Amino acid sequence: MKIEKKFFQHLRKGSFFKEHEKILVAFSGGGDSVSLVQLLLSVQNVYHLDIHLAYVNHDLRKTSLEEERFVRQFASQYNLPLHVKKWQEGKKLTSGIEVSARNFRYDFFAELLKREHFTKLLTAHHADDLTETIVMKLIRGSHFFRLSSLSERRKFQHSELIRLLLPFSKSELEEYLQEKNQHFIFDESNESSKYFRNRVRNEVLPFIKKENPAYVQAMNNFSKTNEYLRQFLQKTAQGFFKENLKKNTLSGLKFLSREERFIYLMMFFENRLEINKHQLEETLNLLEGKQFPKEVQLTNGNILQIHADNVTIL
Amino acid sequence: MKIEKKFFQHLRKGSFFKEHEKILVAFSGGGDSVSLVQLLLSVQNVYHLDIHLAYVNHDLRKTSLEEERFVRQFASQYNLPLHVKKWQEGKKLTSGIEVSARNFRYDFFAELLKREHFTKLLTAHHADDLTETIVMKLIRGSHFFRLSSLSERRKFQHSELIRLLLPFSKSELEEYLQEKNQHFIFDESNESSKYFRNRVRNEVLPFIKKENPAYVQAMNNFSKTNEYLRQFLQKTAQGFFKENLKKNTLSGLKFLSREERFIYLMMFFENRLEINKHQLEETLNLLEGKQFPKEVQLTNGNILQIHADNVTIL
Repeated sequence: MKIEKKFFQHLRKGSFFKEHEKILVAFSGGGDSVSLVQLLLSVQNVYHLDIHLAYVNHDLRKTSLEEERFVRQFASQYNLPLHVKKWQEGKKLTSGIEVSARNFRYDFFAELLKREHFTKLLTAHHADDLTETIVMKLIRGSHFFRLSSLSERRKFQHSELIRLLLPFSKSELEEYLQEKNQHFIFDESNESSKYFRNRVRNEVLPFIKKENPAYVQAMNNFSKTNEYLRQFLQKTAQGFFKENLKKNTLSGLKFLSREERFIYLMMFFENRLEINKHQLEETLNLLEGKQFPKEVQLTNGNILQIHADNVTIL
Repeated sequence: MKIEKKFFQHLRKGSFFKEHEKILVAFSGGGDSVSLVQLLLSVQNVYHLDIHLAYVNHDLRKTSLEEERFVRQFASQYNLPLHVKKWQEGKKLTSGIEVSARNFRYDFFAELLKREHFTKLLTAHHADDLTETIVMKLIRGSHFFRLSSLSERRKFQHSELIRLLLPFSKSELEEYLQEKNQHFIFDESNESSKYFRNRVRNEVLPFIKKENPAYVQAMNNFSKTNEYLRQFLQKTAQGFFKENLKKNTLSGLKFLSREERFIYLMMFFENRLEINKHQLEETLNLLEGKQFPKEVQLTNGNILQIHADNVTIL
């Protein structure tokens, strides 16, 4: 089967696993995670992976009972240890429900990783998810290197989160399951135009696929290059700060061009302080002025006080 | 009128003009360039600009005669010197026609700038053009900082090309012309789904506007930040190359992380050699290997030969 070969080559090229690792798959019973497990099973006799599944019953849908039944049956059919948790707070559908549900899932995964000593957490994000994320962020407004947050691998707790399906399109995965005659749970909330992601999926993705049949490669390249860039900028900025800045001051920026200032300022605030592009631009303008002290009002109530040769956060 | 005030503030904030400059406007008679001229006329008594129009009759459309008549009448109504050129090659519609037409226009502008000593060239690109460009490049596959090429100002010959309408949406401009009861030429080729840009305009732009009514600000921020980034990377890379590299060799890259290597390699090839992302990645992999020499076949027939401590372009 063509896709299994491609998956195997992807695994080898990326050196994602050693043999005999104990890995945890975030499993929903949907097509994406069912594909991921099937593909992992296809390399089972090469890597001898100890595959566990983690399933959260969000209890949000009428079909949750049926879903959990399918998940339990799937796990037992393939003899895979299954970890199940029910989300109790899920009873009322609030607007922040997606974020809460996500946090709940990842807390559960973190707890399992720690308790059961898994070496990797695997999620089933694929090229269509990646594309959606990039388009959503672009439309909502985002920095260049924030345009994708679905990196192929990133630290997660003391372990690693790996997304092995990014080089695969959703239709490729669906075809695979069809060929294998493998049943999966259809999540009708994926269709609802209540969510921004679904609207992007239904209204923009078809356009992108039609205009660029090689969108999977394009989006993966884009995402990877952005990740390189983020790491490059972080390292460059750290080096600069180490040499030029006292803690929480920006005096070392004085002799730079506006472009350099902007990038260093952005990296300076990254992870330190919530600052939006407008405030960043304002800070930049103030730094270039001559009268001090000056103040920038930040979103979270903080005030940035700019003196002639340093910056204080109040 | 609100938009004229916004335009005036934009001009002041950006310090685009001194008084009494002699400027050339790329004029098509369409809504965008008519808006630009009207807005420039609204600041006429502040900046005392000497405004000239440059019009190319592409002779591609049946309506070209009517179009040229409108352009001549508009110029004489507002007493603006008009420079007209007819495109002779335009008789057969080939697939590369858009690029040829564009080259012809800019050659004409360059010729005028030189002959008549204009200090600025102005085009009427607005926020919708910017958004279309970003979306097109994203879909077709592009580097992070290449995602927008519509910068607010850039060098053009010995002069400068300025896009003053980027902070304005197309609908804002159309409303303005309607209020002023100002006629303009409707270019029906803007509707044709033969062109990728038009398909993006008709199928994706409405979605973006609906999802983010502040898309003008978002796209302008994105574009500006990308421009800062491009300049930052260029400067950082130049500094690095100056210290570490002999001409056309990459030996200085040896002691860097993969991310740094990637970015420096990308900047190294930028403007030097046509190299795509796949070839860049291949070069990167080869540089990390141990056996030399190695070769990467480039698109344009060049071969990149990688030795243990240098790189040759054959």
